[in-house]
Amino acid sequence: MRIALGVSYLGTAYTGWQSQPHGRTVQDRLEDALARFADMPAITTLCAGRTDAGVHGLNQVVHFDAPVQRPLAAWVRGTNRYLPSDIAVQWARRVPADFHARNHARARRYAYVLLESPVRPSVEAGRVGWVFRPLQLEPMQAAAQHLLGTHDFSAFRAAQCQARSPVKTLRTVAIRRRGPYWRFDFEADAFLHHMIRNLMGCLIAVGQGLRPPGWVAEVRDSRSRERAAPTFAPDGLYFLGPVYDAELDLPERTPAFDWLPL
Amino acid sequence: MRIALGVSYLGTAYTGWQSQPHGRTVQDRLEDALARFADMPAITTLCAGRTDAGVHGLNQVVHFDAPVQRPLAAWVRGTNRYLPSDIAVQWARRVPADFHARNHARARRYAYVLLESPVRPSVEAGRVGWVFRPLQLEPMQAAAQHLLGTHDFSAFRAAQCQARSPVKTLRTVAIRRRGPYWRFDFEADAFLHHMIRNLMGCLIAVGQGLRPPGWVAEVRDSRSRERAAPTFAPDGLYFLGPVYDAELDLPERTPAFDWLPL
Repeated sequence: MRIALGVSYLGTAYTGWQSQPHGRTVQDRLEDALARFADMPAITTLCAGRTDAGVHGLNQVVHFDAPVQRPLAAWVRGTNRYLPSDIAVQWARRVPADFHARNHARARRYAYVLLESPVRPSVEAGRVGWVFRPLQLEPMQAAAQHLLGTHDFSAFRAAQCQARSPVKTLRTVAIRRRGPYWRFDFEADAFLHHMIRNLMGCLIAVGQGLRPPGWVAEVRDSRSRERAAPTFAPDGLYFLGPVYDAELDLPERTPAFDWLPL
Repeated sequence: MRIALGVSYLGTAYTGWQSQPHGRTVQDRLEDALARFADMPAITTLCAGRTDAGVHGLNQVVHFDAPVQRPLAAWVRGTNRYLPSDIAVQWARRVPADFHARNHARARRYAYVLLESPVRPSVEAGRVGWVFRPLQLEPMQAAAQHLLGTHDFSAFRAAQCQARSPVKTLRTVAIRRRGPYWRFDFEADAFLHHMIRNLMGCLIAVGQGLRPPGWVAEVRDSRSRERAAPTFAPDGLYFLGPVYDAELDLPERTPAFDWLPL
C-alpha cells in the first residue's frame, strides 16, 4: 500500500530536506519517526521538492510503501509522536501504487517573506529575509514580467544544480505587502537549485532602485550566473507544496498557510 | 539623560524577562548589550511588564539613564550589534528625567495566539498555544463579559504573584479567528502573575463546551485558584506593550505587530 504524507517543518535547525550521513536533515528525522512508529528497521520516502538548509516547508509531500498495515490517521498521529517539535505530518492519504511524489507533481509553489525595516528581525528571525532599504512595488512587478513564461533560467541556477534542463516555465510571480512585510509567490513546473533565492536577489535590486526592471531580462538572456545579484538568504523561503492532478484529491493546504502574515 | 527603548523578543530561549544570577533572561541579554555598546561596566534597565519564561514581547518598553552621550539612533543600531538574533531594540526616545516605564504605564496589552488543529504546531512551535478540540466563539465571548471591568482576580493569580492588590480593571477581551488560528486580545491597567494564561485556560474550557459561560463568573467570585482551569501554555502569549500618555509620544507598535497571523 502506497501512502502519501503532507509534512510541514521549520527548516532553521536542519541542513535541508535530503538525507545525509550526518542525519541532521528533515528527511532523516521523518524516516526515523516512520520506522519507529511502524517498528521496522527503515522506511524510505521520496519527496516532491527537496529544500535547502534553512528553507521551510508548509505542505511538502512524500510517498512511501507501507511495510505494515495501520489506519491512515495513525500514520499521522503515531509518526508525530517521534518527530521533533519543528516537524509534523499533517495528513496521510492512500495513493495508487504508481504514484510518485516528484514525477507526478505538475507544478511547485513557493513563497518568500521579506521584512523591510531599519531594524533586523527578532521575533521572526530565521523566518523572513530582511532588507533595510525600502522597496518599490511597481519596478519589481515590471521586472517579474520578464521572468514569466518558458525560459532558460541558467543565470539563476546554482553551480551544483542537478536538473537535466535549465528550461523551466514560471507561471506566477505575485507580489504583495502588509505593513513592513512583503510576500512573493512563485509557481513553476519545477525550479532549479537556488532559483528563487537568485530571483529574489534580482527583484530586490530592482525594487531598491539599484537596477532598472529591464536588467532582469538582460541577466536572464546572459544565461550567466555572474550577471545576477547574489543569492538571497534562505530564511524567508517557504515551500508551499506541489500541485497534483485534481483526481488524486490530495490536500493543497495545511494550517500553517494561515500562519504567514499575508 | 533618561532614554526609553522599545524591545521585541522571542521568549522561547529565555527563562523570562527579569534578570537572574544564571543570566539566561532577556533583561540580562539587553543590559549586557547596552553596556558593551556604551563601553561601561553595567547598565541597569527597568521594564514596563515582566514576562514569564517562554512569553514573547513585541513592544516591551524599558528606561535607563544613559551614562554616555550617543545619538538616539546609535542606541538602537549599536545595541542590536551585541544582541542575539531573537532580541532587537526597535526604537529609542529621550524621555523626561522622571519617566518610569512601569509606573507611568496606564495600561498593558497582551495577545494570545492559539492553533486549533488535530495536529500539533510545527512551523509555529513555541509561538502558539494548541488545542485539538474545536472552539466555539459565542460561549467564549459570553464568558469574557464576566471578566470585563474591575474585579478581584485572585482566582486567576499565581501563588508566587507579588502584586500588592488582586483587584485589576480588565478593559478589553477581543476574540477573533483566521482559519485555524485564534487570537485573544487583552487590555488591563495591569495583570497579575499568570493571569492571562489562567484566563485562557478558562476561556478554552468554555469554548470547548466543557463548562458553561457563567462558570467563569463563579470561578472569579470564588477568588480561589483551585476553581479555575489549569494555567495554559506560555507559547502563544505576546506582550504587545504598555500604553502611556499620548504626550510622551512613544511608539505603540513595532514591525512584528504585522507578523502575527491575525
